[in-house]
Amino acid sequence: MPLNLTQKIIDAHRLSGDMVPGAEVGLRIDQTLTQDATGTMAHLQFEAMGLDRVQTELSVSYVDHNTLQMGFRNPDDHRYLRTVAARYGIVFSPAGTGICHQLHLENFAVPGKTLIGSDSHTPTAGGLGCLAMGAGGLSVALAMAGEPYFISMPRVVRVHLTGELRGWATAKDVILHLLGLLSVKGGVGRVMEYCGPGVATLSVPERATITNMGAELGATTSIFPSDERTREFLAAMGREGDWTPLSADADAVYDETVEIDLSSLEPLAAQPHMPDRVIPVRELAGLKVDQAAIGSCTNSSYADLKTVARMLDGRQVSRTTDLMISPGSKQVLTMLAAEGLVSPLISAGARLLECTCGPCIGMGGSPVSGGVSARTFNRNFEGRSGTQDAKVYLVSPQTAAMAALNGEFTDPATWGDAPEKPVLPERTPDIRHLFIFPPADGRGMDIQRGPNIVPLEQFPALAETIETGVRLKVGDDITTDHILPAGAQITALRSNIPAISEYIFSRVDAGFVSRIREAGHGVIVGGENYGQGSSREHAALGPRHLGVRAVIVKSLARIHRANLVNFGILPLIFADKDDYERIAEGDSIVIDTHLITPGGMFEVLVNGEESIKVTNDLTEKELAIIQAGGLLNSVRQSLGR
Amino acid sequence: MPLNLTQKIIDAHRLSGDMVPGAEVGLRIDQTLTQDATGTMAHLQFEAMGLDRVQTELSVSYVDHNTLQMGFRNPDDHRYLRTVAARYGIVFSPAGTGICHQLHLENFAVPGKTLIGSDSHTPTAGGLGCLAMGAGGLSVALAMAGEPYFISMPRVVRVHLTGELRGWATAKDVILHLLGLLSVKGGVGRVMEYCGPGVATLSVPERATITNMGAELGATTSIFPSDERTREFLAAMGREGDWTPLSADADAVYDETVEIDLSSLEPLAAQPHMPDRVIPVRELAGLKVDQAAIGSCTNSSYADLKTVARMLDGRQVSRTTDLMISPGSKQVLTMLAAEGLVSPLISAGARLLECTCGPCIGMGGSPVSGGVSARTFNRNFEGRSGTQDAKVYLVSPQTAAMAALNGEFTDPATWGDAPEKPVLPERTPDIRHLFIFPPADGRGMDIQRGPNIVPLEQFPALAETIETGVRLKVGDDITTDHILPAGAQITALRSNIPAISEYIFSRVDAGFVSRIREAGHGVIVGGENYGQGSSREHAALGPRHLGVRAVIVKSLARIHRANLVNFGILPLIFADKDDYERIAEGDSIVIDTHLITPGGMFEVLVNGEESIKVTNDLTEKELAIIQAGGLLNSVRQSLGR
Repeated sequence: MPLNLTQKIIDAHRLSGDMVPGAEVGLRIDQTLTQDATGTMAHLQFEAMGLDRVQTELSVSYVDHNTLQMGFRNPDDHRYLRTVAARYGIVFSPAGTGICHQLHLENFAVPGKTLIGSDSHTPTAGGLGCLAMGAGGLSVALAMAGEPYFISMPRVVRVHLTGELRGWATAKDVILHLLGLLSVKGGVGRVMEYCGPGVATLSVPERATITNMGAELGATTSIFPSDERTREFLAAMGREGDWTPLSADADAVYDETVEIDLSSLEPLAAQPHMPDRVIPVRELAGLKVDQAAIGSCTNSSYADLKTVARMLDGRQVSRTTDLMISPGSKQVLTMLAAEGLVSPLISAGARLLECTCGPCIGMGGSPVSGGVSARTFNRNFEGRSGTQDAKVYLVSPQTAAMAALNGEFTDPATWGDAPEKPVLPERTPDIRHLFIFPPADGRGMDIQRGPNIVPLEQFPALAETIETGVRLKVGDDITTDHILPAGAQITALRSNIPAISEYIFSRVDAGFVSRIREAGHGVIVGGENYGQGSSREHAALGPRHLGVRAVIVKSLARIHRANLVNFGILPLIFADKDDYERIAEGDSIVIDTHLITPGGMFEVLVNGEESIKVTNDLTEKELAIIQAGGLLNSVRQSLGR
Repeated sequence: MPLNLTQKIIDAHRLSGDMVPGAEVGLRIDQTLTQDATGTMAHLQFEAMGLDRVQTELSVSYVDHNTLQMGFRNPDDHRYLRTVAARYGIVFSPAGTGICHQLHLENFAVPGKTLIGSDSHTPTAGGLGCLAMGAGGLSVALAMAGEPYFISMPRVVRVHLTGELRGWATAKDVILHLLGLLSVKGGVGRVMEYCGPGVATLSVPERATITNMGAELGATTSIFPSDERTREFLAAMGREGDWTPLSADADAVYDETVEIDLSSLEPLAAQPHMPDRVIPVRELAGLKVDQAAIGSCTNSSYADLKTVARMLDGRQVSRTTDLMISPGSKQVLTMLAAEGLVSPLISAGARLLECTCGPCIGMGGSPVSGGVSARTFNRNFEGRSGTQDAKVYLVSPQTAAMAALNGEFTDPATWGDAPEKPVLPERTPDIRHLFIFPPADGRGMDIQRGPNIVPLEQFPALAETIETGVRLKVGDDITTDHILPAGAQITALRSNIPAISEYIFSRVDAGFVSRIREAGHGVIVGGENYGQGSSREHAALGPRHLGVRAVIVKSLARIHRANLVNFGILPLIFADKDDYERIAEGDSIVIDTHLITPGGMFEVLVNGEESIKVTNDLTEKELAIIQAGGLLNSVRQSLGR
C-alpha cells in the first residue's frame, strides 16, 4: 500500500495499534527534548521511575525559558537539570546556548526519526523530515524510560505547495496564511504534510518556521520531506551523515488537501489576540508600533537575522519604537558576528538580548501599557506579553524590521526591493562543544537540588472506599489557568509541587486550599468543559497533592482529563447533568471505587442519604492506572520496582 | 593660596560658603545625570517645579537599571523618561545603549566640570577630572532647575601613587587595596584626590574604575587630574575639544595623605558581605566558583572586556561555572565586534547579556543557592545578588575570567603571563546618534505617563497646630529598609508614591498603613539612629503621603534627616531621652508649630495632660522649608510659581 510520509514514519515506529485515523497508536520514540520550564518536573518524574539511564537514542535537556534568574530558583533549576542529565545519560544545553528548537534543528534532529518534547513547538524539527510532537512532561519522561508514546492516529493533510515566494513574502507568511485559512482549531487531530514543487524553493530553516507554527493550528505535528535542500542544510551543520532522502510515495493517499501558491502570498500579520486573526500588513499601514521583537523558535535563524541586519544597516530605528532581537542560538550569533552583522544591528538602535526565548514567553520585554508590539513570535494571546492591555501582532522578521524603522506598519509596496535571501555557508561554525555530553556511566554522579526542588511524592493506590466531601463547586469552562494561574511568581515554583499547590484555585476561591488542607482530601464538582486550555500537568499534580480524589463534572477537556488519569484522580461524569444542582460545596461524599468499571455507571452517596449516578469514559488501561495511584506507580509496577 | 584639584573645582563653582572642612558650600552644577530607578521620581520633582527647561549645561537621562521589563511598569517608565526629556531639554539614552557612568565617561563628562547624578557611582567621571557626586533625586532635580547643590566642604585626601601595576594586578586591585586599608567608612566626609607619578601609568578607564568604587569608601567623591592620558582618551572619543589640563598646584595642601606603590599590588578580592573584607586572591585558591559575572559601571570598559576575550579565546569555561558578561556600552560592544572578539567570548561558553547594569543590581543573574559568585562589581552586600545565601566576591575582570576558566579561585602565580594591556584605538566608533537629543524648544512635547506613573502631590504648608496621634512606636536603629523594603516587586512602584506607600513599615507592623490611613495623619516615635541605611527618598515621601507630620526620636541618621526636611516632616528629638518611655502608640499628640525655633526647645502635649520637651537641630533655612510644606514648595515660592 502506498504511504504518505507521516504514515511511513509512524509505521516504522509502530509498537501497537492500527493506522486508522482516531485509533490509538503506540510509537517507539527515538529522541526526546525538554526545556527548563517543563523539564524539571519531567526529570523528577523520570527519576521516580528508578531507571539508571535514558533508553532513547538521544535525549537533550535545554535551558532557554527561565534564564533571567531573578533569585535562586531559576539557577537552582539549571543546576539540577545539569546534574540530573549527567546522571542519566542526557545531553545538557546550558542557559544562553540557544532556543531548544533552533538548537535541536541545527545539531540533533534527524529525518525519519521520532521526537517528542515537553514543549508545544517541538514540531519545528518537522522542517527536516523528523516526526516531532509536543507532549506533556510525564509522556516525555516515559519516552526517556523507553515506554511507547500513544497518540490518536492522525488524519494526514496534504499541503500542496506550488510557485515560489516573491518580494517581501516569507515562510512566516505561509503559516500565517494557513492559520487565516484553517483557524487555530484547523489542525486538530491532523498532521500537516507538505509536498509539491514549492517545497524545493524553501530552505530547511524556512520549512522549520512553518512546522513550528503549525502548533498554532492545533495540529499533532507538521512535516516536510527530506530532500536535497535537507542534505545541504545537514551538510552545512557538519551532519551530512544524518541525511536520508524521505518523501511520500508517489501515489500516497491523504485524508484532506490544501493548495497554496507561494507566488500569491504577501506579508501578513496575525492581529490581537489570536494567531488566526490574519490580515495583509498593508491593511495595517499607519498603525503606530511601540515595540518590535525579533526572535523566538519561529524566526531566529541565521537567514532571518541576516536579513534584518541588512535592512537595518546604515539606518536608524524610529525613536518611538523599542526593537529587541534575540538570536536563536550561539551558532546564529557567531555567524552574524563573523560577517560583521552585530554592529549594524546595535548601531541602528536594536537591543541585542541573550539567545533565549525571552519576550516570547513573557520573560521580560513587556510592551508599554496599551502598546502595539510587532513580534516574529508564534502566539499573541491576551496578556502573554506581560502587559495585559498590549496589542501583539505576529509578523515576519522583515515586517517587524520595517515597522521598527518606520515607527509604524507601512504598506510593503513602499518598502522597495526585498534583500536577497541569505544562503547558509557550506560549513557553519560548530558549537557542539558548548553542550555537556553525559558520561558513559553516570551512576556515580551527584544530583544537586536547591531548596525549591522537591522530589515527587509517591501517591498511594486508589482506596476501596473514599469517604470525603465537596471542597469546591465551580461552573462551566474552567481552564487550567483557573486551576493554576501562570505568571513569573508562580512559574518559578514549578519544581516544587507542595509550594505551587498553595495557588490551586487561588483566583477562583481563596479559601479552597486551606479548606482542603484541613479536611486532608476532597472532590471538586464542575460543569462543562472542565480543564480546558494549556497542558500544564501542575493543574492535576497540585490538586492531587492537596488530596483531591475525584472530580465530578458535566464534561472534561481532553488533555486535562489525561493529566487527571496520569496522576490518579478519578474523572467522574454526571450521568444526568441535572444532578449538578443536587450537590453543594460542603456536602459529604462516599465513593465505592470497587464499583467502577470502564464506561460503567454507578452511584455515589451524598450526605449519607441521596445517591447520584455517575459514569466515566475510562479505558481498562486508564482505570488500572488510577487504581495504581497514577501512571508513575503503574510504570514502576510494570518495571518491577 | 595654592589649591589642590578638588578645591580648585569647588572654588570655581562656589556660590556660597567657605572652603573650610565641614562648612556648608553651595555649588553651581554644570551637568546632571539620572538613571531610571531614581530618575522617574527626580523628573516628577523637576516637573513639579514648573520650569520650562533645565538650567544646566547638560542633563542626561539614562535607562540602565530596570530594563528587563517584566510587565508594563518598566517600559512605561522608559517612555515617560523619553518624553519628559524631550519636553524639558534633557538628553535621553534608551535602554540597552549602556550603563550611565560608562556612557557619561565616553560621551559627556568634561574635566573641571561639576556633575551630580542620582546614582551613588556618579564619581566614575572623576576618572577624567570631573567633580562628580552622587545625590538624592530631589537634589538632582533642583540642580536641573539651576539651584545650587549644598555639600559639607570635604577634607581632601592626597592619594599618592608611585610605581606601575605589574603582572595580573589591575585598577580594581588599587581600589580594593584602598578599601582594605581604609574600610567602607574611610572616605566619609572626604574627597580622594589621586596624584603622583603612578597616575600617568593609568588610562582613563582604569582611573574611572578607581573613582567609581571610591563610593564604597563612603567618600564624597574621588578625582584624578586631567593630563595627557585624559587628552588621549577624549581624542579617542572624538572629544579632544573637551580637554583641558587640570591638576593640583605644586605646593597644594591636603588634609590627609595615603601612599600606594602600584608595583606592590597583587590580585585582590573583597569577601562576602562587605567591599572592605579584602584579601589576596591567592588565599582563596581552591574555592569553587559557581558563577562569574563581568560588567557593571566598575569594570565594563573596552580594555576590560578585550582582556577577558583574550583570556577566553580558544579555551572553555568550566562546566560547573556560569559566566555572564554585560558590556558597559554599545560602543564597547561595537569595538569588540569589530575586532572579532564576540565569538571568542560566546564560544568559550560565556553568556552575553545586554549592555545594562543587570546582575550588579540584582536585576537577574542571581547565583545558585549558597553559591559562590566572582563579580567585577562594586558591592557584595548580603542578598543584593537576589540569592540570600550566595557568597559574592568582588574581583577584577582578570580574576573573574580565571575563576570561570578554572571553576575555582586559583593562585595568580599559576596563571602564566598576563595579556598585554589593550590600548584604545586612536578613534573609537561614535554611538552618539543613539542618544535622543531634545528639541531647542520642548514646550509642545507631549509627556506620556503609564498608569503606574503618578504625578507628585503638592503637600500643604505646615499647620500652626498639629492635633494628631502616635501611629507607630519603634526602637533603635530603624533603617530605611525597615521604613520601605527594597525588592523587585516594590521597586517597580517607585514612580507611584500612593502605591508604594502601601509598603511603608509593612515588615515592621502590617497594621500601620491602615491605622494611619484611617486617622489621616500621625507621628512616628523612634529610638536612636532613626533612618540609617540607604538614601531612598521614598522612605520620607511615603510617610508624608500617608500623613506623617513629625517623627519624635532619640537621634536621626544624616541622609534620612535631610529627606524628612525636604518633604516637610518635622524631625523632633527628645530633649530627655527617658521621655521615650512616656509615649505609647495610640497616644494623642498636640504640637504647636509656631513655638518651634531653629535648635530651640518646646513642649508637645501628650494625651491632653502631660507635656514632653522636644528639641531640633534645624537651621533657619531648613525650618523654612518644613514650614513651606517641603523643599519643592519652597523652591516654587522662590521661583515665584
